[in-house]
Parts: sequence; C-alpha cells; structure tokens
Amino acid sequence: MSDPSGATIGTAADVIGATAGAPTKEEFDTLSQSEPLAAKVADVVGHNRIAINMVWTLLCGFLVMFMQAGFALAETGFTRAKNAGHTMAMNMMIYGIGMLGYWICGFALQMGGVGGVLSLGGAGALANEFTVTIAGKEFGLFGTTGFFLSGDAYDAVIFSVFLFQMVFMDTTATIPTGSMAERWTFKSFVVYGFFISMFVYPLFANWVWGGGWLSALGKNFALGHGMADFAGSSVVHMTGGVAAAAGAIVLGPRLGKFKSDGTPVAMPGHDIPMAIAGCFILAFGWFGFNAGSTLAGGDLRIGVIATNTMLASASGAFFSMMYMWMRYGKPDVSMAANGLLAGLVAITAPCAFVNSVAAVGIGAVAGVLLCISVLFVEQTLKIDDPVGAISVHGVNGAWGVLALGLFADGTYGDGLNGVEGTVKGLFYGDASQFMAQLTGVVTNIVFVFVVMYVFFKLLDKVVPLRVDPELELEGLDQAEVAVSAYPDFNLKKAMK
Amino acid sequence: MSDPSGATIGTAADVIGATAGAPTKEEFDTLSQSEPLAAKVADVVGHNRIAINMVWTLLCGFLVMFMQAGFALAETGFTRAKNAGHTMAMNMMIYGIGMLGYWICGFALQMGGVGGVLSLGGAGALANEFTVTIAGKEFGLFGTTGFFLSGDAYDAVIFSVFLFQMVFMDTTATIPTGSMAERWTFKSFVVYGFFISMFVYPLFANWVWGGGWLSALGKNFALGHGMADFAGSSVVHMTGGVAAAAGAIVLGPRLGKFKSDGTPVAMPGHDIPMAIAGCFILAFGWFGFNAGSTLAGGDLRIGVIATNTMLASASGAFFSMMYMWMRYGKPDVSMAANGLLAGLVAITAPCAFVNSVAAVGIGAVAGVLLCISVLFVEQTLKIDDPVGAISVHGVNGAWGVLALGLFADGTYGDGLNGVEGTVKGLFYGDASQFMAQLTGVVTNIVFVFVVMYVFFKLLDKVVPLRVDPELELEGLDQAEVAVSAYPDFNLKKAMK
Amino acid sequence: MSDPSGATIGTAADVIGATAGAPTKEEFDTLSQSEPLAAKVADVVGHNRIAINMVWTLLCGFLVMFMQAGFALAETGFTRAKNAGHTMAMNMMIYGIGMLGYWICGFALQMGGVGGVLSLGGAGALANEFTVTIAGKEFGLFGTTGFFLSGDAYDAVIFSVFLFQMVFMDTTATIPTGSMAERWTFKSFVVYGFFISMFVYPLFANWVWGGGWLSALGKNFALGHGMADFAGSSVVHMTGGVAAAAGAIVLGPRLGKFKSDGTPVAMPGHDIPMAIAGCFILAFGWFGFNAGSTLAGGDLRIGVIATNTMLASASGAFFSMMYMWMRYGKPDVSMAANGLLAGLVAITAPCAFVNSVAAVGIGAVAGVLLCISVLFVEQTLKIDDPVGAISVHGVNGAWGVLALGLFADGTYGDGLNGVEGTVKGLFYGDASQFMAQLTGVVTNIVFVFVVMYVFFKLLDKVVPLRVDPELELEGLDQAEVAVSAYPDFNLKKAMK
Repeated sequence: MSDPSGATIGTAADVIGATAGAPTKEEFDTLSQSEPLAAKVADVVGHNRIAINMVWTLLCGFLVMFMQAGFALAETGFTRAKNAGHTMAMNMMIYGIGMLGYWICGFALQMGGVGGVLSLGGAGALANEFTVTIAGKEFGLFGTTGFFLSGDAYDAVIFSVFLFQMVFMDTTATIPTGSMAERWTFKSFVVYGFFISMFVYPLFANWVWGGGWLSALGKNFALGHGMADFAGSSVVHMTGGVAAAAGAIVLGPRLGKFKSDGTPVAMPGHDIPMAIAGCFILAFGWFGFNAGSTLAGGDLRIGVIATNTMLASASGAFFSMMYMWMRYGKPDVSMAANGLLAGLVAITAPCAFVNSVAAVGIGAVAGVLLCISVLFVEQTLKIDDPVGAISVHGVNGAWGVLALGLFADGTYGDGLNGVEGTVKGLFYGDASQFMAQLTGVVTNIVFVFVVMYVFFKLLDKVVPLRVDPELELEGLDQAEVAVSAYPDFNLKKAMK
Repeated sequence: MSDPSGATIGTAADVIGATAGAPTKEEFDTLSQSEPLAAKVADVVGHNRIAINMVWTLLCGFLVMFMQAGFALAETGFTRAKNAGHTMAMNMMIYGIGMLGYWICGFALQMGGVGGVLSLGGAGALANEFTVTIAGKEFGLFGTTGFFLSGDAYDAVIFSVFLFQMVFMDTTATIPTGSMAERWTFKSFVVYGFFISMFVYPLFANWVWGGGWLSALGKNFALGHGMADFAGSSVVHMTGGVAAAAGAIVLGPRLGKFKSDGTPVAMPGHDIPMAIAGCFILAFGWFGFNAGSTLAGGDLRIGVIATNTMLASASGAFFSMMYMWMRYGKPDVSMAANGLLAGLVAITAPCAFVNSVAAVGIGAVAGVLLCISVLFVEQTLKIDDPVGAISVHGVNGAWGVLALGLFADGTYGDGLNGVEGTVKGLFYGDASQFMAQLTGVVTNIVFVFVVMYVFFKLLDKVVPLRVDPELELEGLDQAEVAVSAYPDFNLKKAMK
Repeated sequence: MSDPSGATIGTAADVIGATAGAPTKEEFDTLSQSEPLAAKVADVVGHNRIAINMVWTLLCGFLVMFMQAGFALAETGFTRAKNAGHTMAMNMMIYGIGMLGYWICGFALQMGGVGGVLSLGGAGALANEFTVTIAGKEFGLFGTTGFFLSGDAYDAVIFSVFLFQMVFMDTTATIPTGSMAERWTFKSFVVYGFFISMFVYPLFANWVWGGGWLSALGKNFALGHGMADFAGSSVVHMTGGVAAAAGAIVLGPRLGKFKSDGTPVAMPGHDIPMAIAGCFILAFGWFGFNAGSTLAGGDLRIGVIATNTMLASASGAFFSMMYMWMRYGKPDVSMAANGLLAGLVAITAPCAFVNSVAAVGIGAVAGVLLCISVLFVEQTLKIDDPVGAISVHGVNGAWGVLALGLFADGTYGDGLNGVEGTVKGLFYGDASQFMAQLTGVVTNIVFVFVVMYVFFKLLDKVVPLRVDPELELEGLDQAEVAVSAYPDFNLKKAMK
C-alpha cells in the first residue's frame, strides 16, 4: 500500500505477520525457531485451497440459482399472455417452497450418507447412509443426517454444499411447471413442490451422488465406475423431465390443444424475446451447473468442462435449426432455442469425461433428437407439453447419460466411486460402463414416473390438479395468483 | 501441458521457477541455499491469499451492481406503462450519477477514516477520521481521505473496496426511485442523486462501517460489539427506505391514488413478468451483497452467509404468500415477490451471525411484516408508495438489525469493532448488543428522515419535485426522458 | 468439521495429509525427513496460483458470454416489434454459429501462434505462428495450431483460454446484427457468421494479442510497447463496429428511413425497458470483459481495471445525457444508454493503464462523441444504423485505443509485448506509444472495412443480403424465423 499495479501487495508478510516486505530465507528460518512458522505457512496454504474450492462452489451455485429466472422467462414466454402471471408465480414460488422442503429433509436424505462434503473437505463423522444388504452386498438407499441443517450440519462447508445441491434440486422441481403450465391449480402445485423437494429428488440423487446403490454398481457388480452422471443429466434433468411427463399425462392437454380427430393445434408463446432471453440466462447459469459440479476450483478440469458445455449448446442450437430448416423450409427460432437447451442437458452428464469433438457431436445429436421428440410427443403420443420440457430434459437427459457411456475417453475420473482407473465408455473399450449408464436411465424412468404418476393421481383426489374450464379459457392469473400480467396492454380477444 | 485432466498443471515449478515437474525435498532444500526460496514460497502464499480475497470481493461486487438491473425491472414492472421509460431512466441514471458523486467525495467521507481497506489488506497510512471528543470519548463522524480516488488512494486494494462500497451506495440511492415513481421531475431527481451519494449515505455508512461512532458503542459504552450490521440492513436498506418515505411524503400521492374519502385505489403494475424477473435478479445479486461483505473469500463463513441469505428469502416469499392466502383467499404473487425481497433485506444484517433455523424464522417474520406494513402505509398512513419500498427496505431493514440483536448465536464475529469475543444477541445472553442495535435503528430513522425531508422541502423551492398534473395524467416518458416505452403496442386508453 | 465459523477449516492437514489439526514446526520438520514435504507444500501453492487464475478467467468468461443476452435485448428493444423475433434469432444463433466457426479454425488462427496460454501457464510446445520476414524483421500473420481444439490443444488451460477468447469473438460477431437489423436475410447472415468467426476476427486478434505484427511494433520499430489494447477496444469493438458500417452501407437503409430529400425519419425502438435492461446486462458482463483480460486473478491490477471500467460507464452515460439535454432541452434516455456503452467501449483498451480521473475523462469524451457520431452517421452520412452500433463500437473503439496512447500513466504493463518498462502515453512522455496506437486504428479500419465490404458485396451475388420489400414492410419474423414475437398483443397497424 499504496501500489496501484498491485504487484507487491500480498506477500509473505501477510502470512507470517512479519514487518513489511518479504523476509529473506534467513529471517524465515530464524522466525521458525520461535514459532511453528512452516506449519503456519502450510496452514495458510491448506486454507487457501479450501477457500478456492468454496469460492468456486458458491459462485457457481449462485449462477445455478439464477437459472430459475431463466426457466421463469422461458416458460412464460413460450406460453400465453393470459397465464403469464401464473406461470411466473409457479417459477418463483417453487424456489421458495422447494428450498424449505429441501432444508427440512431433502438434503438429509440425499447427502446425509456422505456428510454432504465431497471434495470441499472430506466426509466427516456426519455421514450416515441407510443401507440394505442383499446377497452380501450393501445397497445405499438414503442418508439420515443433516435435517434442518442443524446439529453437526451447522458447518461452513456443509452449508456451501447445501446451497449448491439445493439449486440443483430447484432445477428439477421447476421443470414440470413448464409441461403442466396454463391449467394447473396453484394449491396442488404447492403440495407438489414440497413432495418432490423432500422425497423424490433426494432419493434418486442419493443413489447417484450420495453414496447410494447406483453409484456402487461398479464396486458391487463390476459395471465400470458405477453409474456416472457428472452434473445431472439424469439426477436433475431426467428426474424433472420424467416428472413433467407424468404430470402432463395426468393433467391432460389444454382445452383446444387437440382437435376432435387428434390433430394438434399450435398455441404459440406470447413473448418470444422473453423466452429467448430466458434461454440465454439458462445457458449462462449452466456454466455454474456443470463446471461447478467439481465442487472444487482447484480441479483444473473445470476448463474442459466449461468449454465442452458451451460447445454442445452451440451444436444443439445449430443442428436443431438446420433440421427444421431442411424439413420445413425455415429456421425455427423457438426450436433452435430449445435445441440449445437440449445440447446443454445432454452434455451435463458427460461434460467432464469427453473431448471437444465428442461434445460437439453429443450436442448435434441432442439438437436433432429434440426436434424429433417434440413432434413425436405432440403428434403421436398426444401429450400437451407447452414448453417441450419432456423432450428437452427427459429425452435428452437420457441421451446425455448414455453418451457418457459411449464417449468417455479415459482422461478423467480417476478413482470415481471407489473404482480404480479413469472412466471409459464403449468407444474407448469399456462396455460395462455403458451398462451402468443404461441401468441408471431405466431406474430413473421407472422410479420417477411411477412415483410421480401415483402421486399426481392421489393428489388429484384430495386437491384437484386442474382448474375449471371457464377459468382456463379466461386465463388463470386473477383467480389463481391475484394479478393481471399486462393490465395496461390491449390483448387479442381470442387469446385474452 | 498438455494435460487434459489438469491434475498436474500448477506445481512447485510455478512457484520457484524450477524446471518442469515438482522438485524433491532435496532439490528444494538445495535451491534454498542459493536464493531465499522459502520466503519466495511464502510470498506466493500471501499473494494467493490476497488474490482470493480480491477475486471474491470483485465478483461479489459485480453481482451487487447487477442488482441495479433488478431494481429497474421490478420498479418498472410494478408501475404503469405510461411511465415505464421514466422509471427505467431513473434507475439507469442513478447508477451513473451516484457513482460520480461517490467518487468525488462519498467514498472519502465513508471510508477515508479506515483507509477503505478492511480485511483485504489492513488499514494503511491513508486512514484519517474526523472525530469529536465528548466527555473523554471519541466520536468518529466522517473520513477525510480518498477524494476522487486519487493520491494514495490510487491503489489496487482501495479501488476494489471502492467498487464494492459504491454498488452498496447505489442500492440505497435507487430505492426512493420506487416510492417516488410516476410523478417525480427528472431534474430534481438528478440533484437528489448527487446529494444522497455524496453526503447522506456516506455519513451513516461511516458511523457503522467506517470506524464512526455507532461502531464504537461497544468500546465506549459497553453495548455489545457496538452496532453490528453485517451487510447493510440499516446502512443500505433502511437508509434507502427511510429516504423513500421522506420523498413519498413530500411528493404526495399520485393523482387518483386516494379517493376523496381517503380510500386507496389500486394502480396495478403493468408488467408482472418483468417485475418478477427483476426480483429474481435482486435475489441473485444478493448473494454477492451478503456473502461478499466478508471482503474475503478466505473467510469461510461465506458458506453460512450465502445459505442463510437464500433460506430467509424462501421463507419471506412463502409466508407472505400464505398470509395473503389466509387473509384474502388467494396467494398474491406480487406480495410474495416483495416478501422474498423482505426476507432478503431482513437477513442482510444478521446473515453471518445466526444459524439456519433463525434465518428461516427471520425471513418468515419479514414476510408477514411486509404484508402488514404495505397495507398500513397505504390504508392508514395514506402514503403512496407504488412499489412498497418503504415496507420492503425501511421496515424490514429495521427488523433485520434488531433480529441480529436477538438471534446472534456467538459462533462468529470474534473481535468485531475491537470488542473481544463473538457476537451474541438477547436470546444468547447479551442484552447490551440488542441495545446497540436499537440505538442504530433509532439513529438511522432520525438522521435520514430529517435530513432527507428537509432536503426535499428545500429542493422543491428551487427545482420543483413534482411534474404538472396534465403531464402526470399523460405519462412522463416523452416530456421528461424523450422516449416512448412501447410505441408499437396498443395501450389501454384509461391507462395510456 | 464441524466449525460453523469456518475459522479452522482448511489447514496444513489438507496439504500434508497429517492427522487432524495443524502440525507444529517440529512435526513439520520431522515429516520433512521422510517425504519431500516442502516440495509438496510448494506444489499446492503453485497449483493454488493456477487455480485462482483459472477460476477468475472462467468466471469472467461466463460474464462475457452473458453479454450476448445483453446485445440481444438492447438490439431488439431498440428496433421494431414486427422484427423482434428476427433480431433475437440473429443474436441467439450468432453465438452458436460463431462458436462452431471459432472452434474449427478461428481460435487456431488467432492464438495458435502463442499456444493460447498467456499468463495462465506459460506458452507450451503448441505455439506456432506463421510469419513473413521483410527487411530482416519478422511479421506474424496467423497461428497454425489448435484446430478443433484437438491434439495437444486438448488441455485444461488451453480450453479455458479458448472459452474466454471465444466469447470475445462472439461480441464482435454480434455487433453487425444491430446495424443490419430489420432487413437482413437469415440465410446470408448464417454465412456471415461463419466468415467473421473463422477468418476476419481471428486475423486482427492475432496481430494484437496472438503475437502478430501489430504487437511487435515496439520490438521492430521502437513504437512504445507495440500496439496495446488491453481488452479489445479495437480487437473486439472496432472490428465489430467497422464490419457493422460495411454491412449497413452494402445493405442500405430500411424502407422509409430517409425521405426523398434525405431527411431521416425516426424509427423508435419498440421496447425501451427491454433495451435498457440489455444495456445493464452489458455493463454487468463488461466487468468480466475488462478485468478478466488479465487472465489472472493473481494480477491484483484487476481492482483498478474493474473500477475504471465502471467509472467510464458512469461518465459516458452522464455526459451523453447532459449533452442531449443542453442541445435539445431534454435528457434522452436512449442516448444515455448508448453513452453508457460508449464509455465502456472506450475504457476497454486503456482500463489497466490509467488512473480514475483519466477513466472518468475518457468516458466523458466517449459520451459526447457518441451523440455527435450518431447524429453525423444518420444526418450526414445517411447510413441507417438502427441501434447506433457504428458510433458505439466503431468510433468509440478507436477513441479508446487512442486514449490509451494519451493517458497511460506508467503504473502498469511492465514488459508488455517484450518491451522493457511500463506503458506510457503521450501525456506521460511517450509519443511513440501513441503512434503505435494510431497504426493499430488505421490498420483495423482499412483491413476490416475492405474485407467485410468485399465479402458482403460478393455474398450478395450468391445469397441476397436483403429481404423483399413486401416482407420488410410486413415484418421479418414469420417468413424468416418462423415465429411471431407477440401473437397475443394488439400491435399498432402502422408499425405492424
């Protein structure tokens, strides 16, 4: 001080508390006699390392939290003006509702088995997984510590992990608000928010990330490293996408979506700039989603992860656009925006394990797959998914998990899930890893779909899921969430 | 290089300039003979520590700066279309105007007494506080160095602190643009922008954060650690909220806001998705606001702070929603959005000092308090506050400061404000801390209200505060800021 | 664990793998006998240093990527509703298209000469620049390694540099979508996207940042440190602005923009809040743009850079506003928003080399220059630039590069481009630095304008640049990108 260049700020003096300026080797050694100096330096080094990891994890977690705004804008922009307040409201409240549910017990069930600590600091005494033993092998089912973030969980590292995991859960929980938009009662939505954040997401997440049985497929059955999902193509996106499918099926299509002969009717989104802005926010936050999943700024693989992530989004958007252009004669910007998201969803599982050519390829497949799936869901399955959530998150989530099992090139993942060596996919010689991935995909579909379908069916008997037809025609905003989205604008009558 | 996994990038060679690969202990010791190697290592360690702190402070500061966009969208969305350009313009220009004012003298008055350095590097020779001595005790009033960021203040660390403090000031300065929206002349607004950034904010901020008299209540009068406000429930939010109240009172209600019998008339915001998107941006930036206030990524409490921050926002939103639902039969999404902000404002002071259960509780109280206060301000006090700024920032800012005095649990704040031991609130045995908090709240209300009320009254005589009635009915955009917000859209006549 | 304050988390134990708690000096020394402990500590220190730099570079890169959303909203808001989908679509797809082009060969041409590594880790064997030798002096023209980020370029550090450089290129590529908005065919836009990202941007960027001939003007011709452009006033913004001028000239003005006597007709933007929100996002991302250009969180100059950046934006906005106010009697918020951007563009080159008074001055000049240039381009040159891209990025980019040559104060840039000493401008005694800057500005204008003008002319013969007049009157959205931006809103007939 004062050094405008900053070159000499922050020297040994900051570590050892000596007088200004760096000590010489001699002074350093002399100081060592009187106090455990080397140990003090080493302490600061260790502290720095943890600080780098925590700063990284938190900042990336903030970016993921911001994705909630992206979902809100994308979903609202892609639906109709008369329900804009309602769609925004669900996206806002799922953040609060889900967080409370996750704080109460979701985090404990998910991460209580490993202490929620991971690479930030090493698992502590907190860890306690509920397991069942079958044929001499342990199957982890859920954690049992950390409820209300209290007791031993009142810890700076654990709070950081909670924050990062919470925003992942929130992403899952908000996905069905897209597929079920424009007809869902707010009251039943609130119940859903607690259910998925407290139980459904945490269980599957435990099985993959919390020390549960899918992560142990390698140790128990020699299936590669067990199921691997770096940042949640399955844990987050498939769970959300499959739940979205169950919800959309139980809820049924919007009035007028299908003609009596089953032909789908286009119901265009009311604000395309808003929707695309939302997609940009999602792409921005996704850097935190994927690269932050190291939970360590000191894991330099973050450079590869972040770059793969954006490359897959580019090819997802580009190949969606080209597919629609070639098939229908025009580049469809709505589809391209979803293609960008599809690329991101697909690269989420393999981002850390593949090279950039594979990342571009995975994104390209995702972009085309997205278009085909959206048309298939609407035209063949006759499911009304206003924003394409099932195709973006469900179908491409599955593709991403499988892609890891194909393209993982053995440059990363040493010792993952307690299995020696790096992670290799089918194309690099390890077919068993692909089998682990396939097991994870099937498990997700079966578990999430059955639980959510049954949940929605039962809930519907207690708290009806669907608004009255008159209200649906009128628009949900005033009756359900007490606002008009655009009171000063003249809206078209038909669209109200 | 080239190591795709990144595992071996960044080794001792990066520190000591040796040949590739890490040196052995022997090589290390040998090298030590010829140069002050250990000191060099220690230098890098100290430099790394400062770098971690500066990176953290700057990135968090960027997030806080982005909150200005959140305020712009929230305030504009919650007001009417005919004034949308004007409301956006105030929010944009307060950033530029306030920054220039703060650069000229605001920062010097606020932080010139401690050199603006805090935990980033230790106070330097720059520090110089103007004090008065009463009954043998020193009362710090304002700093006297650092004007125009020049002289010794041209320093990398001080510039970083300036950036972080500037965006805090900016938050305060933008709050009254909400309560005074839709009727305020742009010309008088510009004068206001310089006044609050150059004098009002800096003075109170000095008293709490710049070594001034409120921070010395502990040393001087044994009131706990003196007034504690971790990230600005009072310094930033109350100051803004109290100024907003003074401004709204002097300016009077919008035309048509109250019937002749005093009954308030609803004037709904014109773009609810925009307003909610703004609230999301605020919640996103608030992570920087609270967790960044350590000014140190190396202070691992940031994990606790960030998590408490988001938990309070969740309960604020949830309990606002439930309160309105129970009282009026519908969940009011506008109120819930403000409840989310209320939770954030309230946790801002205590975020570092409390556990997660307290954070949820503080947010819950904030959410309910927000609803009650909004209704009270409008229905009883007959003050027209278009966006609820007085209740969100003023009332809940006070609640946050007092909550610290209740719930601080003694796990943090060792040595704060030169007082030994950690910070404890009333419920943890230290009633004197609560008294310090109460003193701060009263001081803020009296000082800010009186100064701003007098300022607005005087200013009104020189530069009229209020636009002509015809202009107010017509909308302020073209006449005041030379734009139409939505020229291509058909707006409703009544709303224009 | 469990330490809620975080004070004792992260100690020597994290480094040396000892049992819990920090070792004493004695234990430390004892351990040293059995293993190369000091070397291990030094390894972690070196690793921490690289991690800090990578974390900083990536997070700043994410912020720059988010600027693409800012461009999308600003450009769309400042143009008409009938083309809102088309303008958004160009802004979204340029991200994907440009990224693929840059991945194929752009990055290799730009950074292949220095290995793309810079301060993150030191240039490796990868570096290979194509040079020509004239009169005994080497002139670097382009790099020749790193295509498809493959081979030796599959490296965590290089991927990080790729990400950061890619988002800079993307900024350049998106600038012409503003000046060419509302009349450009999507098909020819796609071709343009590949061309600029694969060839034009990479070449000029190589000359300044990749070891090319402009950076060697110091070594070869004793012109200061050679051309200096810290974060891209020329490399990014002038390149974009000059290309925008070439495109707007070739494309011609929008129908109805000029009366038969040449008088310009105002075509106001359709959503001012959207446009201003976009400008806020740009200002937010610009912190990453400028401060991230150290590619090192350990370069503490980042504090000065970030603060200078925001100060210039403040004075740019303020002095634009005041200029219009004094000249036309009203503060024009659209112009002030562009003035804010102009200040940012201008400070981008000199941000690291100047003090805060210079930063405010540079921004003030930029703000006034912006107003004069916008009026000159429209009224005198009769070029139709819907969003002012030529003036914001082109004119102020040039100003920024020259300003560095005037105001650089010798506190930074030691050894830049292989020239001893710090960087000093004309006002600090080094006129040769100003000549280097001038050379760079002239080179950019000549190279970029000629190449882009010829490219657009040739492209027009193969893929017509301009949409049919009927389509232009109708609006481009449905025909060109298959959406309606606002299907539920009643738009004004004249504006359609």
